[in-house]
Amino acid sequence: MPASEFTLIEKYFTRKQNHREDVLLGIGDDGAITRAPADQLLVTTVDTLVEGTHFFSHSDAFDIGFKAAAVNLSDIAAMGAQPGWASLALTLPSVNEKWLAQFSEGLFTLLNQYGVQLIGGDTTRGPLSVTIQMVGFVPEGKMLTRSAAKPGDLIYVTGTLGDAGLALLVAQGKQLIDLQYKDEIAARLHRPIPRVEQGVALRDIGNAMIDISDGLLSDLGHILTASHVGARVDVEKIPLSNALASVRSKRGSWDLPLSAGDDYELCFTVSPQKEAALLNAVKQFSCPISCIGEILPGKGLHCMLSSGEEIIISRSGFNHFDDTLIIRK
Amino acid sequence: MPASEFTLIEKYFTRKQNHREDVLLGIGDDGAITRAPADQLLVTTVDTLVEGTHFFSHSDAFDIGFKAAAVNLSDIAAMGAQPGWASLALTLPSVNEKWLAQFSEGLFTLLNQYGVQLIGGDTTRGPLSVTIQMVGFVPEGKMLTRSAAKPGDLIYVTGTLGDAGLALLVAQGKQLIDLQYKDEIAARLHRPIPRVEQGVALRDIGNAMIDISDGLLSDLGHILTASHVGARVDVEKIPLSNALASVRSKRGSWDLPLSAGDDYELCFTVSPQKEAALLNAVKQFSCPISCIGEILPGKGLHCMLSSGEEIIISRSGFNHFDDTLIIRK
Repeated sequence: MPASEFTLIEKYFTRKQNHREDVLLGIGDDGAITRAPADQLLVTTVDTLVEGTHFFSHSDAFDIGFKAAAVNLSDIAAMGAQPGWASLALTLPSVNEKWLAQFSEGLFTLLNQYGVQLIGGDTTRGPLSVTIQMVGFVPEGKMLTRSAAKPGDLIYVTGTLGDAGLALLVAQGKQLIDLQYKDEIAARLHRPIPRVEQGVALRDIGNAMIDISDGLLSDLGHILTASHVGARVDVEKIPLSNALASVRSKRGSWDLPLSAGDDYELCFTVSPQKEAALLNAVKQFSCPISCIGEILPGKGLHCMLSSGEEIIISRSGFNHFDDTLIIRK
Repeated sequence: MPASEFTLIEKYFTRKQNHREDVLLGIGDDGAITRAPADQLLVTTVDTLVEGTHFFSHSDAFDIGFKAAAVNLSDIAAMGAQPGWASLALTLPSVNEKWLAQFSEGLFTLLNQYGVQLIGGDTTRGPLSVTIQMVGFVPEGKMLTRSAAKPGDLIYVTGTLGDAGLALLVAQGKQLIDLQYKDEIAARLHRPIPRVEQGVALRDIGNAMIDISDGLLSDLGHILTASHVGARVDVEKIPLSNALASVRSKRGSWDLPLSAGDDYELCFTVSPQKEAALLNAVKQFSCPISCIGEILPGKGLHCMLSSGEEIIISRSGFNHFDDTLIIRK
């Protein structure tokens, strides 16, 4: 690593963090050296945020750093794992120290909150892009994958859905919202809170789990495909923020809570026998959970209204290679 | 992961590889699940290749995939570790199946050769960029870091130096070489061979080690800084390919072997007492090794000619944020 790059990394990416005992050698050599916990498996995730695809060119650098950490923490959480180490590949068009200071501040705000140490990185020159790779830990047999949903399982989600999608519409000038909701909704898009504690707490309770990055229907769809089951979603039970509830009826559509991405809530299934344990565990949660439907035998995802009508959705999530949308994961 | 992205990854990134027993869950969930070896430490590396910085826009897709694997394998090798798992973050301007087929072929040529399983990935839309994160394994106390060089150690390098830099000059039309060397030299730039077996074999022999990605003086400089020592390099002992030897005298400069990057040879130090063990181990190597100097007490890196003259170098490696050079790491 050349001297100036080294200085840059030293200045912004090594000073701000806590040291973990299982990191024997962090940033600064050809590779980091870490000791895996003897009694746990490793969970590895990787997520990239690219300017123009996942964030605006004018996006706040703090938010980009924060969100790059959040999306990976969310994937770790969705496996029921405890996050531990991260690597950062940062591609920059030029060295902008003010940008780097804010970016690293946003990044370490979340990494430090969850006790994650940045153990390695590569800074390169090119169009702005942030890739984080993260490792977490989960005891054998305790991970929550997409393939373990069973007919009869109840489908739950954390928090509220559709807010990040609403924030995007607001930012694009396509949707007006009441001024009182503006900051709260913008934060859902720019500074999503990963459900790390919830993911870990669900280890002994849930069957299948995924994080909602591409939209409820798309991500629940992955559980159904991987588990070879179907599902009924009771659309009116989907938890909505006050902001979204206020615009949903005006829009006359369930598109945002059903299909918008970037919420980073957890969607998980639980057998009815474990529901009491779930409701007990929820008492420690910093967010509500809501039962939105049921896993069914067979195939298909049916979005039902209480009237008995079924909502037919033509497109169930964001495709990265579809020109019509930006900013969803 | 949206359906089309999933199909893409399934088609090009999951079918071609061998399955490792320590990978319990590979590509296709929120995270991969792996079991770390009980008696070894983990070595983690990350390297990004960006179009326009690390490869040309017209570069062969096979070569880009090959090199992305090679540069990470080289970092793993430089720690004395055995490579095991990799994650891929691939940013693409559009879906070009021919490009993906060739890229994945180049990637898996090297990953499969070294028994590395691709356990996760993220494909995103944006300017072409490839980030690989790799994990390898090394027994405790056996890793070779940059900080363990001792005064009196002999300085060795594998292979020959400066060839990738020569290939770049040739590609840029800045240097003519004999036609007979053209393919061999181009391969040094586009398909570098990581010294994985050599790195592992040096575990019990070497003191400090680094891979030469930024140029000998820059990378040896990192060893000197980290180890708080100096060094003498006997410039004429630096191993040169026939191609480089033939142009070096005409150029009248040692700049390529001393300062050019992208060779991915190993530079390591060994105490004189271990030299016999080294020369014995070398018998299994697929490349030569050469002693090019000695670690000295104090500070400074002195490049000496046999005439007793010292070569003074103004710039000792590639700075990613320096506009004057491209294609070195």
